[in-house]
Amino acid sequence: MEQRLKQQLDFALEIDKEKNIFRQTHLSSHGRNENDAEHAWHMAIMAYLLREYSNEEVDIGKVMLMCLIHDIVEIDAGDTYAYDTEMQKSQKDREDAAKERIFSLLPEDQKQELIALFDEFEAFETAESKFAHAMDNLQPLMLNNSNGGADWREHQVRAEQVYGRQSKTKLGSKTLFEVTDNIIKENIKRGNIKE
Amino acid sequence: MEQRLKQQLDFALEIDKEKNIFRQTHLSSHGRNENDAEHAWHMAIMAYLLREYSNEEVDIGKVMLMCLIHDIVEIDAGDTYAYDTEMQKSQKDREDAAKERIFSLLPEDQKQELIALFDEFEAFETAESKFAHAMDNLQPLMLNNSNGGADWREHQVRAEQVYGRQSKTKLGSKTLFEVTDNIIKENIKRGNIKE
Repeated sequence: MEQRLKQQLDFALEIDKEKNIFRQTHLSSHGRNENDAEHAWHMAIMAYLLREYSNEEVDIGKVMLMCLIHDIVEIDAGDTYAYDTEMQKSQKDREDAAKERIFSLLPEDQKQELIALFDEFEAFETAESKFAHAMDNLQPLMLNNSNGGADWREHQVRAEQVYGRQSKTKLGSKTLFEVTDNIIKENIKRGNIKE
Repeated sequence: MEQRLKQQLDFALEIDKEKNIFRQTHLSSHGRNENDAEHAWHMAIMAYLLREYSNEEVDIGKVMLMCLIHDIVEIDAGDTYAYDTEMQKSQKDREDAAKERIFSLLPEDQKQELIALFDEFEAFETAESKFAHAMDNLQPLMLNNSNGGADWREHQVRAEQVYGRQSKTKLGSKTLFEVTDNIIKENIKRGNIKE
């Protein structure tokens, strides 16, 4: 087998491990914790179906690929919970090391391409990145809301924390932020999010 | 909230259930059974990275979306194991009913679009469909091979069955079929696949 193809298949096998990285979010109907691969799959489909609500026009194929690969670094770095400020201090260093190791399995051109796409997602500057982040926020919010806000209650999350994260959705989609805002307000009213 | 957006979000929440549809394939490192959402995520990334090996030029965004949605019908219809000929008899009827129910949650235009894409995948005629099928075959073969062919051994699968399914990969990618063929031959030699 050619070296290039072998590298591509080695990478394909390596990322199977993302299915073992579990998040704080629970599946709908009070299911088990969700893993990163499922989360990414869900985000990519949502991005496609909701693209009409992006503030700016986006290359939707690029957004979908960004969604699919944005958590690959967590194979090594682990999932950092959105409201865990202690773990967030070391998040960038852990993810940078992971990025280098994992994407280096690929042929050089594809390594550079996926690293650039991951960095673009993280930088939160382009239209594609902003819309992908809106999906990264909306997808777990939707699941959590469907479970009566159980994830917020479990972690005793406060309104300012939720707004701190979710307000970024506004930069990707004003319309989807309205949905988000209504869900947050409803969950504050019900006592699922602390004021 | 507008009716259109409500329908889109209802569909987004409904497909969360795909994460509970488990397949016969096991994750690498002798992991648990894989679910449909993870399988679809894996296929879509592999399609992107391996697109240079498609026999015909493909619209890769379309292939990726096809990969992501091709198993949504299994939320109702369940996973039909590749070598279960009894279940395969009722597969089309079960999947047609599921297709109608689940995609009808979407606004009409998106319902028609996703049904057309699913039907295109199933029809196995276009370049995109053939390459997506190659991923649908290669992804579990790769995992199973990484586990020493344990899934084939467990189901006492015969070479003619594996070739019956995997030979379709040739129509999507001659190069990836060569990889497949080598893996099958190696697993026959080791007694993981019965002659």
